[in-house]
Amino acid sequence: MEVRPEAKLIDYTPDPEKNVAISARLCYSKKGPEQLMEEMSREEIEKLVRKVVSMGHLSTLEHTYFYFHIQCSRVTSHQLVRQRIGVSYSQRSQRYVSEEDFDYIIPPSIQKNSEALKAFREYMEISKEAYKSLLDKGIPKEDARFLLPAVKTNLVVSYNARSLMHFFRLRCCNRAQWEIRSIANQMLFQVRKVAPVLFEKAGPTCEVEGYCPEGEFSCGRIDNIKTS
Amino acid sequence: MEVRPEAKLIDYTPDPEKNVAISARLCYSKKGPEQLMEEMSREEIEKLVRKVVSMGHLSTLEHTYFYFHIQCSRVTSHQLVRQRIGVSYSQRSQRYVSEEDFDYIIPPSIQKNSEALKAFREYMEISKEAYKSLLDKGIPKEDARFLLPAVKTNLVVSYNARSLMHFFRLRCCNRAQWEIRSIANQMLFQVRKVAPVLFEKAGPTCEVEGYCPEGEFSCGRIDNIKTS
Amino acid sequence: MEVRPEAKLIDYTPDPEKNVAISARLCYSKKGPEQLMEEMSREEIEKLVRKVVSMGHLSTLEHTYFYFHIQCSRVTSHQLVRQRIGVSYSQRSQRYVSEEDFDYIIPPSIQKNSEALKAFREYMEISKEAYKSLLDKGIPKEDARFLLPAVKTNLVVSYNARSLMHFFRLRCCNRAQWEIRSIANQMLFQVRKVAPVLFEKAGPTCEVEGYCPEGEFSCGRIDNIKTS
Amino acid sequence: MEVRPEAKLIDYTPDPEKNVAISARLCYSKKGPEQLMEEMSREEIEKLVRKVVSMGHLSTLEHTYFYFHIQCSRVTSHQLVRQRIGVSYSQRSQRYVSEEDFDYIIPPSIQKNSEALKAFREYMEISKEAYKSLLDKGIPKEDARFLLPAVKTNLVVSYNARSLMHFFRLRCCNRAQWEIRSIANQMLFQVRKVAPVLFEKAGPTCEVEGYCPEGEFSCGRIDNIKTS
Repeated sequence: MEVRPEAKLIDYTPDPEKNVAISARLCYSKKGPEQLMEEMSREEIEKLVRKVVSMGHLSTLEHTYFYFHIQCSRVTSHQLVRQRIGVSYSQRSQRYVSEEDFDYIIPPSIQKNSEALKAFREYMEISKEAYKSLLDKGIPKEDARFLLPAVKTNLVVSYNARSLMHFFRLRCCNRAQWEIRSIANQMLFQVRKVAPVLFEKAGPTCEVEGYCPEGEFSCGRIDNIKTS
Repeated sequence: MEVRPEAKLIDYTPDPEKNVAISARLCYSKKGPEQLMEEMSREEIEKLVRKVVSMGHLSTLEHTYFYFHIQCSRVTSHQLVRQRIGVSYSQRSQRYVSEEDFDYIIPPSIQKNSEALKAFREYMEISKEAYKSLLDKGIPKEDARFLLPAVKTNLVVSYNARSLMHFFRLRCCNRAQWEIRSIANQMLFQVRKVAPVLFEKAGPTCEVEGYCPEGEFSCGRIDNIKTS
Repeated sequence: MEVRPEAKLIDYTPDPEKNVAISARLCYSKKGPEQLMEEMSREEIEKLVRKVVSMGHLSTLEHTYFYFHIQCSRVTSHQLVRQRIGVSYSQRSQRYVSEEDFDYIIPPSIQKNSEALKAFREYMEISKEAYKSLLDKGIPKEDARFLLPAVKTNLVVSYNARSLMHFFRLRCCNRAQWEIRSIANQMLFQVRKVAPVLFEKAGPTCEVEGYCPEGEFSCGRIDNIKTS
Repeated sequence: MEVRPEAKLIDYTPDPEKNVAISARLCYSKKGPEQLMEEMSREEIEKLVRKVVSMGHLSTLEHTYFYFHIQCSRVTSHQLVRQRIGVSYSQRSQRYVSEEDFDYIIPPSIQKNSEALKAFREYMEISKEAYKSLLDKGIPKEDARFLLPAVKTNLVVSYNARSLMHFFRLRCCNRAQWEIRSIANQMLFQVRKVAPVLFEKAGPTCEVEGYCPEGEFSCGRIDNIKTS
């Protein structure tokens, strides 16, 4: 089946902005967190969250978590799991789960090119046949998969708000690969609904920092490009 | 004021065992996490959590978080913050918050020794005076603190279940320093209330693994001591 | 071209065992590391390294580094980069480097099965043609790769001795996937040459700890199997 | 004894810039690292290192290590060990090593204030006496230390070039506490000698990024101050 890359927020800290604000205030107060929890108004919480994010004192953002389901190609999952800090993954195994009748994702550049699209779809059918034929010949799933293309995979991924911010900086960028950018944008849209102040300035580096770190590869969206 | 070391669970993943079970099942299933969430019964969740913990497939435990308030001496906070993986800290600052009239914790060995207790308490008063006198002489808080003893500090700390398990193995051990052990035991008691199956086998290495890694330093609680 | 999985140690701490021993001794000594460096004999270094490893006081093993070149399939690189702690990766990009005329690795189960081998090789040629044909139709490399099988990739990977030990426990295990096990065994062989004492007890969990954590999936190599 | 904060580079990757350049080039080349190692000239290495640092593609900087001895107060070691990523610590233990006749560090603000200096020194002598007197009363070292001020400690610390860069950004800043800043500056001076191109743009955020993230707390050294 042809499917689309999808990210869905399934679980998260009930009140992420409160946790961030309490943690930040604690550092500069004689009061303990319980007292702060009772005393801080919504307004104070939001003001402090804005300050913390703006000044880059991001360690307090770690007292939160966001748990997502992600459906994407294995091209993109390979990239996704490269982030090592503040993030946890569980992914469907190709050793144990058969990929007969796998789903796949079609890149937009192929979608838009009718000849390429035809060739791509035909190739996917050839792949399915070849995979099944290896299984039929007694090859175990974990070895038959060596011929599989970038089939769809399922992951659950947990981030804290700080590692999410970092993810958005890199992956919401126009220079990011389109599929991971699609996922990052879906995630940003969803976390903004549950923590609007915390993530109001989240996004690619150009939006957050006001400069582009991509040098000669810049998409040209802003003028302030850092060069070596 | 003389105070006691205290840990208090303030916030956590609403259903940690469910997250762990869904994440584990996902790896071996064609189904996505949403479908698994609907289908898995409490019994299945608990069975799978037990299996995951027992086999040491601990990465799925990371899809959870536990946010604590901790009150302890700065001797112990120095030790506490040494754990780097899967854990986040925010701590009251001695640069910005005055320690005039600081609280402190009295080690049990001193509590029980009336002469030592008297000397300790007198020394704490001398410390307070010396600290205040430096402030009076125009020394900033961040430098006056160089003479402070291990006064009480406040922290908030976030762990995931995997990093908590690791913490319990090291710090619930009889060989651990008494204050951090007290905190670890309080934490274990509290997380067991909210995730009894997940933490039913948590504790020091001897309880979890059936051997003692402390060699010649073993407390002797179990016979199976690993030696070099 | 058909190639084999390969790992090659290219650079490492000049004297890893010395760094480990100095770091361990420092914790229990009034002396500073420079004095310890002068005074500790080879014999003392080796004795202390053995003790540290045996007691599991592994943080001192982190004061070392080992830099490898790895050539493997992208099936295996996807797995390899899942380790997040104490390890750094750089990998050849499929966005920027063309995979025309890619190399590939043939799993032993396919090598041994002449029919499967024939089908696998034919499929690889079909893949090359399909990839080129997408490029010819104007599809960018980063999208054309969606149809590629698990072609060979190049990585450089840096570990410290502690993260290497962890890697060996999981990946030298008979239950590990054959290609990552091959790489792990090559790495273990090579680091043992440059730090024989440090790695003398490295290997799969069964060899290191004397029990098998794989439960019902155990290879049966040892009797002491942990079950839930 | 009165001592000064000191950092000393004891061991490091023989050619850190080469490792960084090879790792960076690998990502964009069909060639393997061994071939790149033979072919890249010093000029190419330096050009690539400059580019990588300037564009913030910092993961390649992780293929290096720098091992330091640090002597500082326990105020500062508490702060130092808060960095969790890409860094390893071993520290002298106050449970096992007696602090009778401890060394200590005098903050400059106290050095310069003769009255405060006199009071500080007298207090240090009182501390020594009180510590010894607790030991004499049978209190174990691990509890007697609860009254100790911020005595001198020894650590060995290993960083990779990326985590060092991060450390310098925070700790070479004029707003950082003076002792950790002194250590950071000593470290920067020393790594620049062994990897001048790699660290030529290292330093506080204002020097590296051209803006100050400290908001209202800015030292005013540059005009471009980020505010919330």
